[in-house]
Amino acid sequence: MSLVIIRKTASAEAWLEALARLAPELRVHVWPDTGPVDEVEYVLSWAADPSVIASFPKLKGILSLGAGVDHVLTDATVPRHLPVVRMIDDTLTRRMVQYVVLAVLARHRRLDEMRANQAASLWKRPSLPDMQVGIMGLGEIGRACAEQLAALGYAVAGWSRHGKPVPGVEVHAGAEQLPAFLSRSDILVCLLPQTAATANVLDRGTLSMLPRGAYLINVARGDHVVDADLIALVAEEHLSGATLDAFRKEPLPPDHPFWTTPGITVTPHVAGWTEPATAARHVVQAIDAIDAGARPRGLVDRATGY
Amino acid sequence: MSLVIIRKTASAEAWLEALARLAPELRVHVWPDTGPVDEVEYVLSWAADPSVIASFPKLKGILSLGAGVDHVLTDATVPRHLPVVRMIDDTLTRRMVQYVVLAVLARHRRLDEMRANQAASLWKRPSLPDMQVGIMGLGEIGRACAEQLAALGYAVAGWSRHGKPVPGVEVHAGAEQLPAFLSRSDILVCLLPQTAATANVLDRGTLSMLPRGAYLINVARGDHVVDADLIALVAEEHLSGATLDAFRKEPLPPDHPFWTTPGITVTPHVAGWTEPATAARHVVQAIDAIDAGARPRGLVDRATGY
Repeated sequence: MSLVIIRKTASAEAWLEALARLAPELRVHVWPDTGPVDEVEYVLSWAADPSVIASFPKLKGILSLGAGVDHVLTDATVPRHLPVVRMIDDTLTRRMVQYVVLAVLARHRRLDEMRANQAASLWKRPSLPDMQVGIMGLGEIGRACAEQLAALGYAVAGWSRHGKPVPGVEVHAGAEQLPAFLSRSDILVCLLPQTAATANVLDRGTLSMLPRGAYLINVARGDHVVDADLIALVAEEHLSGATLDAFRKEPLPPDHPFWTTPGITVTPHVAGWTEPATAARHVVQAIDAIDAGARPRGLVDRATGY
Repeated sequence: MSLVIIRKTASAEAWLEALARLAPELRVHVWPDTGPVDEVEYVLSWAADPSVIASFPKLKGILSLGAGVDHVLTDATVPRHLPVVRMIDDTLTRRMVQYVVLAVLARHRRLDEMRANQAASLWKRPSLPDMQVGIMGLGEIGRACAEQLAALGYAVAGWSRHGKPVPGVEVHAGAEQLPAFLSRSDILVCLLPQTAATANVLDRGTLSMLPRGAYLINVARGDHVVDADLIALVAEEHLSGATLDAFRKEPLPPDHPFWTTPGITVTPHVAGWTEPATAARHVVQAIDAIDAGARPRGLVDRATGY
């Protein structure tokens, strides 16, 4: 049995070390090295080129290097019977929570306004009304963000397709409860999975349901946001701005208006990243589960796409 | 029995409402109105002019409108036998925690660097090494900050004069453990009370013990920091910068170099403020305790100054 790591950036050194420590018996190759292809039972992959995953005849499971799995599900060459497992990594979750909390606090406590005042040596207290936070997408990371923001004193509501309860969070479910959820969210955090159903979900229609002066934080996928609608609503001052970490095209092209729209903060997809030292445990457990015929944690439902 | 509210700014409307709701029998006046002076048993005060507090012959207790009580203890006209009670307000604590968490995250996650990159339409991921946080001063607010930062994944240590244990925090105590505490703190948060012993505590000597590239967050009092030493250490790049919310003179004079020193963020004393609706409960409980001959929560020890 072997595992092939497929990724386009950076070295796989840290992954090799972490996997060797946790599962010394596992043979690990780094694409394009595969070892004998009919020994490859697992791939640990991010955005493999089409046909690469399909090239392993004895494959038993596909492990995603990130929380998102759209890169696997949109690859039509991947055999549909293979289990797909999304990454669950406490370090990734912690980093995402830090980023979201930073973006919420910077908006609520008006860091930009204070910076602008400082540039003019101006001692002026901003007005700081309470703001309510809404979290779209209540998976591993969304739930952790909700918990942390509630601990910081925010009134937090959540929205998910099925509305599974989250302790301490007012959960809204499905399309019919979306307007009520949006209309009470002064700060909207998007943590949705990327599926056919969530593409373009943040367009003029939904963003207009946010209260006047609301703020968007997108740490999920660029495809969730209709860029031109967001820019127009900020220009019209219906929205006070946005913090965006994910874009339809990355790197964000230098001429994209997001870079220069006042009120919009662009960060280069840095909200969260996986830490091999902690994430390797999840990978090994998923392999063990699939080998044993059990359901691995983070197993993706192809019907919903997450 | 009556209480006089003494403060120089804003109206006391919210305090009058909150106290009337919680303690309808309490007569409340707002300085310079006092009602009959020999009926005044309590003052709720911030920075009263000297001799004002001393002008009430039947005074039984002095309640501070803020967490700091130096404004009372440095007033030599205040009779020393009177109990002094500092403010304990969950809303104040929550706001202070938000500010400290924002300042820690903005430094650790390099918000300024990303903003500068955005101004150049530059997609460039900053290097984000882990940073350890040290909290000086483990009172109500310091403990709450430590707990929240630990929940966000930071390795947090604390320092206090007496080193009373705090769950989940590595506590250092007294002068002899200060160097060890400082040398492991990449981000230092100052939440010390203002006393004779803490004035000028953050000078070249102590700030030099922080690791190279360390960052200071001062949300306590301006007197804790030797301004010129901090500016020099930032200029020398021993420190990467600071976020400062409290100053020796407020408003910070327009020609003070803090406004323009690269790496230093100035905010206009906005980290926390008391919310009468929640703080009035603490005031009423303190009055009840003193009236009953019991020890009120937040009673200040004149020997230590907090």
